[in-house]
Amino acid sequence: MAQSELIDKITEEILSRLKNRKGSSFPSGSSTGSSRGTASGSSAPTVSPAAGSGSIQIPPADLAKYIDHTLLKPDASQGQIDTLIEEAKRYRFYSVCVNSSWIAYCAKKLRGTGVKVASVVGFPLGAMDPRSKSFETRGAVENGANEIDMVINVGAMKSGDYKLVEEDIRWVLRACRGTTLLKCIIETSLLSDDEKVTACEIAKRAGAHFVKTSTGFSGGGATLEDIALMRRTVGPDMGVKASGGVRSYQDAVAMIQAGATRLGTSSGVAIVSGAASKSKY
Amino acid sequence: MAQSELIDKITEEILSRLKNRKGSSFPSGSSTGSSRGTASGSSAPTVSPAAGSGSIQIPPADLAKYIDHTLLKPDASQGQIDTLIEEAKRYRFYSVCVNSSWIAYCAKKLRGTGVKVASVVGFPLGAMDPRSKSFETRGAVENGANEIDMVINVGAMKSGDYKLVEEDIRWVLRACRGTTLLKCIIETSLLSDDEKVTACEIAKRAGAHFVKTSTGFSGGGATLEDIALMRRTVGPDMGVKASGGVRSYQDAVAMIQAGATRLGTSSGVAIVSGAASKSKY
Repeated sequence: MAQSELIDKITEEILSRLKNRKGSSFPSGSSTGSSRGTASGSSAPTVSPAAGSGSIQIPPADLAKYIDHTLLKPDASQGQIDTLIEEAKRYRFYSVCVNSSWIAYCAKKLRGTGVKVASVVGFPLGAMDPRSKSFETRGAVENGANEIDMVINVGAMKSGDYKLVEEDIRWVLRACRGTTLLKCIIETSLLSDDEKVTACEIAKRAGAHFVKTSTGFSGGGATLEDIALMRRTVGPDMGVKASGGVRSYQDAVAMIQAGATRLGTSSGVAIVSGAASKSKY
Repeated sequence: MAQSELIDKITEEILSRLKNRKGSSFPSGSSTGSSRGTASGSSAPTVSPAAGSGSIQIPPADLAKYIDHTLLKPDASQGQIDTLIEEAKRYRFYSVCVNSSWIAYCAKKLRGTGVKVASVVGFPLGAMDPRSKSFETRGAVENGANEIDMVINVGAMKSGDYKLVEEDIRWVLRACRGTTLLKCIIETSLLSDDEKVTACEIAKRAGAHFVKTSTGFSGGGATLEDIALMRRTVGPDMGVKASGGVRSYQDAVAMIQAGATRLGTSSGVAIVSGAASKSKY
């Protein structure tokens, strides 16, 4: 375990020194530093999350800043990743969200465009050991990831081992080095409502910046009820990302109205075109 | 990248020193050192893999030594892992196969029982960057894993980047430190027959000990045709593991007859009980 300890000690030392410096992006470790995790803060439409009723009007193109343009299937080829990148640039999506082996490639191609790069970690099962999640995060950050979408340890949640769930998140957060935004995927389809609340509370306490509904790989996806529950649980200052099954303009607006501040979807082009594609809701 | 380089250098140094010592389990780096990867070599039933016809008789209980008793779902709880461990001991399965966050727990519980511990790595998408797969492997080995079931970089296969596919395997193999057996999951359901052959050739060239069909998470599973194709491609000395959809005694025998030397399944208890459960084949 000497290597892991060495890495830990170096990490702790760096974090300790960073604490003494000014200008860290996330000095508190618990806030995104922007308006509830939306892309540009001030320019985001004003919505009343979880208001239950009322309508909001958002021009379809304005939804782009909410969207993590996502391609996570295992057999995604370089050509498909190139298409993802080009679409993200053309439609000004907030980010591309890809597996960690594509981070360096995407970061290079997107440099200077304003489109961010998000890497999934411990994806999609969340059952990877904490140190490996942390290492994967560190590599993603080194390779240019601006955001990390980690899967929490769902098995530990199911075993009532909340200490491990929290430690797991803290391991990853440390590797985010105070400069990289962390989203925790709680995989709502596998949790009871009580467990969803507990998972959100743990993510918030650990210092994550977002909670996120789903990987899209374990059945089910974001529901309006879950988004509202998650928003109520984490309060107004943390990000909430809806992912899985967000396929149309109507889906997107409904999720934002329910409390989402970010959308993970592979249907971004349809959404910002105002297309009324087949909705799950 | 300094940390990664440090880890690389330490790894290379250790491997270099190990090379100068006798008694390494896998001195050649390319063979399992046992009879085609079966549990106990000499006591395994004699079969004629890929013979196309002919029947073999194996008492159901004798199939236990072929079986990696598998539980990989993200929400597996400690209670379910305990059951897996107890069944593996009772039926004398070759190993338990679990996600990396369970390795230390399983290794502790199975110490002295003869049941081995296998960890999946980069699972189930295979799209994690090579260094992270290597780190996950290193941690699993440190925590007591005897075998590693890694997923190859399927996206790199689809992009024709065979160099990356091979390097990825070599990164993981180095972390196996010459003492831990490496299986490469090629995810047959996502590959053409030509790609399956290429993937097997790459795995063999890189020095892996087994090729394995499926994660069970990307649709499809082991077929007799794929097992025969993989056996023909890698020759008689490498292990071939059938996984995904192996649910009955009949399935198991058919897979072995087609050339499999290991079976990954969550239906091990049914198989060794001779149960004729619903077969896919």
